[in-house]
Amino acid sequence: MTRKRVQKAADELGYAASPSASRLATGRTRTVAVVVPLLSKWFFAEVIAAAGRVLSGEGYDVLLAEVSTPRLRSEFFASPRLHGRSDGALVVALQLTGEELAALESQGQSVALVGSERPGAASVQVQDRDGGRAAVRHLLNLGHERIAFLGIREAPGSPLGGVPPAERLLGYRDALLEAGAPSDPSLELGVENTVEDGAAGMASLLTRVQPPTAVFAASDELAFGALSALRHAGLEVPRDFSVVGYDNHELSGAVGLTTMDHGVAEQGRLAAEALIGALSGEPARTSRIEARLVVRGSTAPPRRLRAGAR
Amino acid sequence: MTRKRVQKAADELGYAASPSASRLATGRTRTVAVVVPLLSKWFFAEVIAAAGRVLSGEGYDVLLAEVSTPRLRSEFFASPRLHGRSDGALVVALQLTGEELAALESQGQSVALVGSERPGAASVQVQDRDGGRAAVRHLLNLGHERIAFLGIREAPGSPLGGVPPAERLLGYRDALLEAGAPSDPSLELGVENTVEDGAAGMASLLTRVQPPTAVFAASDELAFGALSALRHAGLEVPRDFSVVGYDNHELSGAVGLTTMDHGVAEQGRLAAEALIGALSGEPARTSRIEARLVVRGSTAPPRRLRAGAR
Repeated sequence: MTRKRVQKAADELGYAASPSASRLATGRTRTVAVVVPLLSKWFFAEVIAAAGRVLSGEGYDVLLAEVSTPRLRSEFFASPRLHGRSDGALVVALQLTGEELAALESQGQSVALVGSERPGAASVQVQDRDGGRAAVRHLLNLGHERIAFLGIREAPGSPLGGVPPAERLLGYRDALLEAGAPSDPSLELGVENTVEDGAAGMASLLTRVQPPTAVFAASDELAFGALSALRHAGLEVPRDFSVVGYDNHELSGAVGLTTMDHGVAEQGRLAAEALIGALSGEPARTSRIEARLVVRGSTAPPRRLRAGAR
Repeated sequence: MTRKRVQKAADELGYAASPSASRLATGRTRTVAVVVPLLSKWFFAEVIAAAGRVLSGEGYDVLLAEVSTPRLRSEFFASPRLHGRSDGALVVALQLTGEELAALESQGQSVALVGSERPGAASVQVQDRDGGRAAVRHLLNLGHERIAFLGIREAPGSPLGGVPPAERLLGYRDALLEAGAPSDPSLELGVENTVEDGAAGMASLLTRVQPPTAVFAASDELAFGALSALRHAGLEVPRDFSVVGYDNHELSGAVGLTTMDHGVAEQGRLAAEALIGALSGEPARTSRIEARLVVRGSTAPPRRLRAGAR
């Protein structure tokens, strides 16, 4: 055991291993870059934290890259930013083009993707279409017929790529179609993914000639906004209106929001594990996560179906 | 302008500057380590995002270090983790010992601190004691006399260090003392900084022989928990009970929480600027932020002082 003997001798002499020296010796940086569109959104912070814990546990440092605008994104992929700085890249919620993936690979990076997929790259995907369908089925099964969709619209040129939000909309339409309820385009809204826009979207739904009795919001932040607009309008949830979110945000319990849990921390954990696998030469691993309904207090049958109500 | 001429020649020849080569040449890593106790808390994500934007704007990469347990903390400071990997460290909410600061400096790091101070290090501090006092004065001025404090208690051995939470408690006591209301130890609670513990703490306050009519929560997450417990108890905020938080968390608007804004993003921005200053050899810069009251819908005079109530 040469390694052990060297370690013992070093310990006796009071030497500590220098990480940078051993990095130089192996040609590995023991660093992983985490690339996200936005650092200050709950979803990304949660994925980074969970991935970071797995990576530090394996002795990797985490280098952060935020590519929050189209310009930053193209600069990031056009320059050899990661070359010699990290061994792999964990890319969250960006739909990489073939060129972007090739750019990472040409910088010697192993790649793992969260929320998108590319042939040959490890990835973690959520069954978002099924998740959207389940959320809306829950509302249909309670007896709701006019169900709105409050979706995530991305600003033009947004680096997000947005497959998951689009899948949630498809799931919404699937559920309505299955139930024989034709989807009504006036009940489908796309807004920016903020509490403020969720509130504004909900307010606009309340101005329809025949307003909905329930809404499926494609994120918990949108749902928080919807709850706030309903409260300001004097409507009580779930007595007067039902709301289902999507995230299981850490604060959804505090406001009693029924929501779809898509295992956000698990997405980060699985992606980190897949990346570590790829770094040790394993074939690219693909994981799929199913979203599951968490029933809290924001959904109930519509008024007309409840005893004592009319 | 030699630099410009070289750049022009390189452009014509189709060469791109290699960041790692220029790093080797200058002996600088153009990387800054951000050291936090917890990645997945809103406060830290917000500070990192704001600091990260300033740092990337100046061409620095961000290396993340989460030291979430006493063991990870002592390992982090005992090993030369940052040597040759970063030029500076932005340390958030950890009260560094003299040895820890010296360990960073011996690794060639410039240091900026958020939420603590050490002689010789750049820092950003919030006037938390004044902030706590202002929050409680607001409740006193509305006519509340029995005001509880829902504070942040750290788990034994927590790496947080906790000066700001302790300062908020002192501010609470200051305000009561000034108003001639002796503080009642049975109304001072310390819990873990989570929504669940905020709810449990609030519930416990509702079991006092003479319950309070208002609470000052030392974080918005605790306040969210308090609001949730009050709602479950059938009490209406602010009609039956007033709540003031501390943070101006991005979701405090959605739940209508009155709170103290301590400029969380600004803390990150100022710390990053101070660190960049220190890296260019400027003397250590100290910034102080005043927390300010944001009035929303969770505070009102106590019932007995309102017309029509008894």
